[in-house]
Amino acid sequence: MKRSSMENEVCAVARSLDVIGDWWTLLIVRDALAGLRRFGEFQRSLGAAKNILTTRLRALVAQGILETAPASDGSAYQEYRLTAKGRALVPVLVALGQWSNEHVFLPEQERILPVDRAQRLPIQPLQVVAADGRRLAPEEVHFDAPQRPPAGLS
Amino acid sequence: MKRSSMENEVCAVARSLDVIGDWWTLLIVRDALAGLRRFGEFQRSLGAAKNILTTRLRALVAQGILETAPASDGSAYQEYRLTAKGRALVPVLVALGQWSNEHVFLPEQERILPVDRAQRLPIQPLQVVAADGRRLAPEEVHFDAPQRPPAGLS
Repeated sequence: MKRSSMENEVCAVARSLDVIGDWWTLLIVRDALAGLRRFGEFQRSLGAAKNILTTRLRALVAQGILETAPASDGSAYQEYRLTAKGRALVPVLVALGQWSNEHVFLPEQERILPVDRAQRLPIQPLQVVAADGRRLAPEEVHFDAPQRPPAGLS
Repeated sequence: MKRSSMENEVCAVARSLDVIGDWWTLLIVRDALAGLRRFGEFQRSLGAAKNILTTRLRALVAQGILETAPASDGSAYQEYRLTAKGRALVPVLVALGQWSNEHVFLPEQERILPVDRAQRLPIQPLQVVAADGRRLAPEEVHFDAPQRPPAGLS
């Protein structure tokens, strides 16, 4: 299923998927949050071919999710650092990690979860909260399929 | 960058990506949350080729994200409905929608956001909260790259 560009898509979910591009993007962001900064570090972590990782990192810089900077140790290496836009993907990664923790892993399987940096304890389950403060069950969240735009919701 | 299976992956983020498979999965889940149930409805919404949509829907049923049921109107059609595991992806979709709303759309661009079904108002920004109740900034969330498992975090 070849995906056409969703650049003109009004659905906010679809637009995010267009920018993130593919799963590797989120794994690169995860690794950057884990402290990886150099090309070789990402390569070892992801097991990616050099040319393809180069393309992915360039796309992330072009999208403003990563930025390049001289190496912090003064060497000739270039580092990749997350921008504010990249760091803002943390709730997406936390939501994905919590979902697989709850619904994908078998009880006995070892797993690594996003944790609080200070105390190293798992993060509380994300709550979906309405404008007036009510916690919403999944059924209470309304998504519109893009071809059926509702009145007054644009 | 061909992705190898992450079935034995200990990183909860990576495992979720293995199950979700590709972006189309999340768009199908979005459409199911919007009330679409029949093959033809998903096809019209996603503009997908029949054979590929068939494969995707079957994979979602096999993963326990969708389940099939006889049509609610008594006709011969088959319907696809979200399971609890599928509905549990709502925080992922909300996180993606909020991120693109904040960081991808241009200010003047029309957009459709996930809303509270009762009041049709946008959902509050998801908060990442530590076990002790502190709200965490992105920098305070710790992700481990999978090849560097920390002690005591499995």
